[in-house]
Amino acid sequence: MGLAVIGVDLGGTNLRAAVLNHEGDILSKHKESTRAAEGRVKVVARLIENIRRQRELAVHEGHEIVAVGVGAPGVIFGDKGIVVKSPNFPDWNNLPLKAELETALTLPVFIENDANAAALGEQWRGAGRDIGSMILLTLGTGVGGGIVLDNKIWHGADGMAGEIGHMTLVPEGRQCSCGNTGCLEMYASSRGIVQTYCEELIKRAPRDADRHGDITSEQIYQAAREGDGLALRVMKDMGRMLGIGIANLINIFNPEMIVIGGGVRDAWPLFIDATREEIRKRAFEAPAERTAIMQSLLGDDAGMVGAAAVALQRTRVPR
Amino acid sequence: MGLAVIGVDLGGTNLRAAVLNHEGDILSKHKESTRAAEGRVKVVARLIENIRRQRELAVHEGHEIVAVGVGAPGVIFGDKGIVVKSPNFPDWNNLPLKAELETALTLPVFIENDANAAALGEQWRGAGRDIGSMILLTLGTGVGGGIVLDNKIWHGADGMAGEIGHMTLVPEGRQCSCGNTGCLEMYASSRGIVQTYCEELIKRAPRDADRHGDITSEQIYQAAREGDGLALRVMKDMGRMLGIGIANLINIFNPEMIVIGGGVRDAWPLFIDATREEIRKRAFEAPAERTAIMQSLLGDDAGMVGAAAVALQRTRVPR
Repeated sequence: MGLAVIGVDLGGTNLRAAVLNHEGDILSKHKESTRAAEGRVKVVARLIENIRRQRELAVHEGHEIVAVGVGAPGVIFGDKGIVVKSPNFPDWNNLPLKAELETALTLPVFIENDANAAALGEQWRGAGRDIGSMILLTLGTGVGGGIVLDNKIWHGADGMAGEIGHMTLVPEGRQCSCGNTGCLEMYASSRGIVQTYCEELIKRAPRDADRHGDITSEQIYQAAREGDGLALRVMKDMGRMLGIGIANLINIFNPEMIVIGGGVRDAWPLFIDATREEIRKRAFEAPAERTAIMQSLLGDDAGMVGAAAVALQRTRVPR
Repeated sequence: MGLAVIGVDLGGTNLRAAVLNHEGDILSKHKESTRAAEGRVKVVARLIENIRRQRELAVHEGHEIVAVGVGAPGVIFGDKGIVVKSPNFPDWNNLPLKAELETALTLPVFIENDANAAALGEQWRGAGRDIGSMILLTLGTGVGGGIVLDNKIWHGADGMAGEIGHMTLVPEGRQCSCGNTGCLEMYASSRGIVQTYCEELIKRAPRDADRHGDITSEQIYQAAREGDGLALRVMKDMGRMLGIGIANLINIFNPEMIVIGGGVRDAWPLFIDATREEIRKRAFEAPAERTAIMQSLLGDDAGMVGAAAVALQRTRVPR
């Protein structure tokens, strides 16, 4: 019984919504397909419907919903609650999502970048509980980043901070979709793993180059688990590049913790030793030893929990 | 007339002390040799003597000194005011500098890392006036860094944050004295400029390799100013590497400003175009366009002014 908030993670694939109390306990949650292809109007309507349903459940249990937090992918103007642009929702240019939701719900709504929300979620209720400063790296198709400093998301001047996946590690390296070359994301993601593996295969048998188009990162993890030498080496290479990126973050931020999330984290035992070795070689000793390198504890719930934390922080309900 | 603070920059070469009012105006200042080789006891005595002299001048003018800030090189435990270790003062292991100065002066004293102090100085009264978040890169023999976020130095968990010069840019690159390879510092410093120049000379005439031992970065700037092709190219290379480092900082922090200080800054027109070009190529467009890349305005006064700002912040005198 008491005050509660709703946290929503609006992903390109799934829409997750939950009711949380002010301590971050999940009281109810629901997941369904986003169906982004149906377009802006239908997705926003589905979002509103999901929030209403969660609110009804909460009210029925005697809770009062005081605010809603929504994590969404893309460039977000958090203060105004505008989704400037989003790779997952191509027709969302400058969508005033906060205003649309507040009109429909008559509740305060706060919009946050999804990677930032996930970082705050992990810091509030996941691996980073009881610490103030941590960085989340989400290793999926790409590499997402969220920076929490003194219990708050570091947004930067325009809300664009935390693009850690686009740190240059190899000046003349692989071409990234962002326009840069040699980004961390091109090595420490599932895409990077597949590319390294295919490059190695092509080195061995150049004539078979066009036969490797449908190899997946899961197949490579599986091969590595079964002891395949090449797959093991590819996972180690990925771990090394991740370690260089983390060593840079340690030298820059001297954080308390780095948390690794995303699908690639499932291959943790295959890469983490190489990551730790690289950190030892490259970062200053004292901050490197103090920085805990942890797996995400919340997994797919991190964004939703973090969105709820954003709602609590901005409405100034004490957490 | 009114409340004032003393800011001290204790460098390996020079000791600078000044009286500043709460708006950051320098009311008096003095510089002399540190004479670090004379050892801990004499250097601390000289420090105390300088602070006392500044205080006497201030009191004579009707000001009341409320606190002292000291910027010192090395690893500092700011909360306790201990100089853990300092490359410039080899006999200063775990020196309780705050306690020694407070006993002698009966004034509150605050100790800060010199690069951090310089960053806060630039943000308070230099290039970063009126902005909240900026990063200072001091390009000298090495590359120092200081990070100011929301008007405060970001110290990290152990006061070790801001080691931006030791960001890896070339994983298998030049050996750095920190133990890592390919640090920014090995390319975007006066040492880096000399090394690039010598490597190029050796490529041209391998047998003369041991003839280049006494080339200085100043000679290379001079040659570049006079139109020497190799020297111009070396300065451009240095600018490119600096640009990669800054692009990484922009993608990570989305800062309002990056300020460049240190001796190498004097060669600004010789490298800054290459730096800006690299930032355009590598950082996200919106944050790259918004980040001002500026020269330090305070120069050698930055550390002293910043140390005064630390004293004001920690004694909670409104700035």
